[in-house]
Amino acid sequence: MPLDFQIQAQSGSARAGTIRTAHSEIRTPVFMPVGTVGTVKSVPQDVLEELGVNILLGNTYHLYLRPGVETVRKLGGLHGFMAWPRSILTDSGGFQVFSLSELRKVTEEGVTFRSHLDGSSHFFSPESAMAAQIGLGADIIMAFDECTEYPADRARAQASMELTLRWAARSKKYFEEHKQEVPWKSQVSRNQVSKVQGFKVSRVQPGGVETLKRETLKPEPFESQSLFGIVQGGMDRELRRESALRTVELDFPGYAIGGLSVGEPRSLTREIVESTLEHLPAGKPRYLMGVGTPEEIVEYANLGVDMMDCVLPTRAARHGLLFTSEGKVNIKQARYAQDESPLDPKCDCRVCQRYSRAYLRHLYASGELLAQGLNTIHNLSFYLDTMRRVRHSIQLGEQSRDLTTVWSRPKPQASPDSA
Amino acid sequence: MPLDFQIQAQSGSARAGTIRTAHSEIRTPVFMPVGTVGTVKSVPQDVLEELGVNILLGNTYHLYLRPGVETVRKLGGLHGFMAWPRSILTDSGGFQVFSLSELRKVTEEGVTFRSHLDGSSHFFSPESAMAAQIGLGADIIMAFDECTEYPADRARAQASMELTLRWAARSKKYFEEHKQEVPWKSQVSRNQVSKVQGFKVSRVQPGGVETLKRETLKPEPFESQSLFGIVQGGMDRELRRESALRTVELDFPGYAIGGLSVGEPRSLTREIVESTLEHLPAGKPRYLMGVGTPEEIVEYANLGVDMMDCVLPTRAARHGLLFTSEGKVNIKQARYAQDESPLDPKCDCRVCQRYSRAYLRHLYASGELLAQGLNTIHNLSFYLDTMRRVRHSIQLGEQSRDLTTVWSRPKPQASPDSA
Repeated sequence: MPLDFQIQAQSGSARAGTIRTAHSEIRTPVFMPVGTVGTVKSVPQDVLEELGVNILLGNTYHLYLRPGVETVRKLGGLHGFMAWPRSILTDSGGFQVFSLSELRKVTEEGVTFRSHLDGSSHFFSPESAMAAQIGLGADIIMAFDECTEYPADRARAQASMELTLRWAARSKKYFEEHKQEVPWKSQVSRNQVSKVQGFKVSRVQPGGVETLKRETLKPEPFESQSLFGIVQGGMDRELRRESALRTVELDFPGYAIGGLSVGEPRSLTREIVESTLEHLPAGKPRYLMGVGTPEEIVEYANLGVDMMDCVLPTRAARHGLLFTSEGKVNIKQARYAQDESPLDPKCDCRVCQRYSRAYLRHLYASGELLAQGLNTIHNLSFYLDTMRRVRHSIQLGEQSRDLTTVWSRPKPQASPDSA
Repeated sequence: MPLDFQIQAQSGSARAGTIRTAHSEIRTPVFMPVGTVGTVKSVPQDVLEELGVNILLGNTYHLYLRPGVETVRKLGGLHGFMAWPRSILTDSGGFQVFSLSELRKVTEEGVTFRSHLDGSSHFFSPESAMAAQIGLGADIIMAFDECTEYPADRARAQASMELTLRWAARSKKYFEEHKQEVPWKSQVSRNQVSKVQGFKVSRVQPGGVETLKRETLKPEPFESQSLFGIVQGGMDRELRRESALRTVELDFPGYAIGGLSVGEPRSLTREIVESTLEHLPAGKPRYLMGVGTPEEIVEYANLGVDMMDCVLPTRAARHGLLFTSEGKVNIKQARYAQDESPLDPKCDCRVCQRYSRAYLRHLYASGELLAQGLNTIHNLSFYLDTMRRVRHSIQLGEQSRDLTTVWSRPKPQASPDSA
C-alpha cells in the first residue's frame, strides 16, 4: 500500500485531509520546505521536527550530482542519509535540468545536460530519473517531465505536453518494475532501519566505557514509494485539460501541476491552476509545484490544492526578508537597530520568543552565520502556521480568503492537526 | 557582592570550584566559548544552554565597533541584547586592538587605532575601555592592558609590563567610581529585566488575539560586575613574578595571565604559566587567556588554572576540523564519504546522536550552512565534556594527565557538576 489519502473536511473548493506514507502522517493542505541537497539550508533536522514539518522536498538533480545516488542508497536512502524519520518527496530532476544546467539537449529518449558544478556531461531519461529517485528512496517521487518554457506558442506547448505524457508512461512502467528496490524496503540492514527512524539510541557500558547502540525497530506498515504524474500544457487551458485527462488515464496515486511560476503573470497562474484542478480526481492529492508567497499559498489552498513547495521562505530568509503577520520585514534596515520587540508578536517560534528585532538586525548586518539559521526558522514557522490556520478554517467550514483574514483569527488550539 | 568563588576539591595543583555571578553558577575549571560579536558563531543560544555553557566570552573591540556600546546598553546590556541569561565575560579590547586594528599608536594615555571594518579612527584608554565594558554589562570584565609582542627584549617587556600596571590601577579606579552604571543594575526597565532572564513568556488573549507578554522576575542576588587584573611580563619569569605580585597588590577579585599564545613555543607557554600561577592567590579565580587545544586545556587545568577561552573549537569547526575522543577528524576527507558511524562514538551531543560522518562530510563538501552549525556544536560539546571529565577527576582526587586518560574513563554520572 503506497499512500493513503483521506479528506476530512471541505469548505467550498478547499479540502482538509491526511496523507499517510511509510514515514509519517501529513495534514493537508501542506507546505513542504525545500531541502535541496539533503538539508533545509541552515536548519538542523530536530528543529524541523519541532516546527511540525512532516514532509520535506529533496532535489534529485542536486543529490544525483552530489553526493551521488549510490552513496545515498548505501546509507539507507535519503531518510537514513540525512537522519530524517518523516516523509520526503523528490522531484524528477526535470525542472533543475531545464533551469540550472548548461547546454542541455532534449530528444525523445531523454535530456543530455552539463552539471552546473563542474561542467561534466550527464543524461536523464524517464528510466534513469526513476532509478535515481528509487535509490534516493523518498516516499513520494515524480514522473520525469519537460517543463515547458514561457512564453511558448500552442504548437510548442502541445509537443512538449505530448512528450511529457510519453515520458510519464515510461516513468510509470520503470517504477512498477523496480519499486521493490527502494533502500528502506529491500536492502535494509539493521543499522539502516534504525537510522531511518532517527537514531534511537540506547546505552551500554561494556567495561565501564560507554558507547552508542542503535535499536532495531518494528517494520513499517506502508512499504513502497508513490509515483505522482505531472500535468503540463503551457498557458493553454485546453492543453492543460487534455494533459490532465490523459495523465489521469495513466492512473497515478497523486497528480502535480507543473510548468507554472515560470515568469507568467500571477493572474494567469491562478487561471491555469483553477481550470486544471477541475480535471483532477477529487479523491487524490493535488500538488502545485513551486509556489508561492504567503498570500498565494492561502489562495491556492482555497482553490483545492493539497500540497505546495517553494524556496521562497528559505531563500528570502537568507537575504534578510522575513514574513510576519504584520507584513514583510526587511531586517537589514537601520530602523530595526534598536527595536526591542520580537519579529512577529503573534508568532510563537523559538526565534520570536527569544530574540529582538535589534539582535536579528545586528546578526544580519554583521554577516553572522546565525542570521541565516534564525531567519529561516522564523519564515518556515510562519509558512507552516499559515497552513495550520488554513486547515483549521476549512475544518470549521470557514473561508480563509486572504492572509490577513487567516492571521486575524485566534490561533487554533492544540489538536491532532497542530503537528 | 560581585562574585563568589569556592574551591570544593583539590588534586595536586588542580582545583575544582564554583564561581557564582549575578547570572549563573559556573563549575571550574571551565572552558568559555568565544561569542565575539554577541553570538557564538552559528550556534543558537538555546543550544549553548543545552550544551551546559554557563559562561561565554564577548569581545569588547568588536561590540564597540558594531553594534556599538550604546545600542547594547539600551537593550539591557549584552545579556538582554543577545538574550543570554547566564554569565558573560568581556575582554578589555586590548588584545584585538593589538592584533586586528591598523596604524595603532600607544601613548601613556591609551591607544589610537583604526577599525578593521571601515578604517575609522578610535581611541581606547583604561577609562574608556572600562566605560565600554560597563555599558556591555558582562559579569566579569578585564582591566585594559598592553599585550606585549613576541619576541620582545627585557627592557621592552619591562616597560610594557609597567604600562599595564599603571593602566590596571586606572582601570580599577574608573570601575570603582562607575560600576553602579551597569545596565542590569541601575537602568533596568521591566522589559530589560525579563530579557536578561531569557524572555519568560506568558500568554494573554485580549479579544481572542494572542500576543506575547514578558514576565517581571525577582531581583538578582549578586548585583555588580567583577573586574579582573591581567598579569603581563613577556616570556621573562622574573618580570612575570613582579607583574603578578604588583597586580595582586592592586587587589582584584580574580587574575588573568595574558600575553601568551602569541607565537612562543608551547614548552615556554607552560613554563611561564606554571611560574606565574605560584604568585597568584589560591583563593581567587585564575584565568589563562586564549588557550588552547584539547590537550592544553587538560594540562593547564592540572596546573591550577580555573578559566580558559579560545576560538580554536569554534574556528576549527567552521574549517571542518573536528575534535574527538579518538583524535582529530578532518571531515572534508573523501574517506568519510560513506562512513555511517557517528563522528565520535563516545560523544552524546545532538550531532553525534543523530548524524553520520558521511552526512557531515557531504554538508561540508557541498558548502552547506548546516555544516558550520553542526561542526561547532560538536566541537564545543567535546571541549565542555573534556572539562566536565577533568572536574570529575579532581573531585575524585585523581590526575587527568592527558586527554587520552581523560577520555578513557567512564563518563561522569549526572550530578550538580554535569551542567
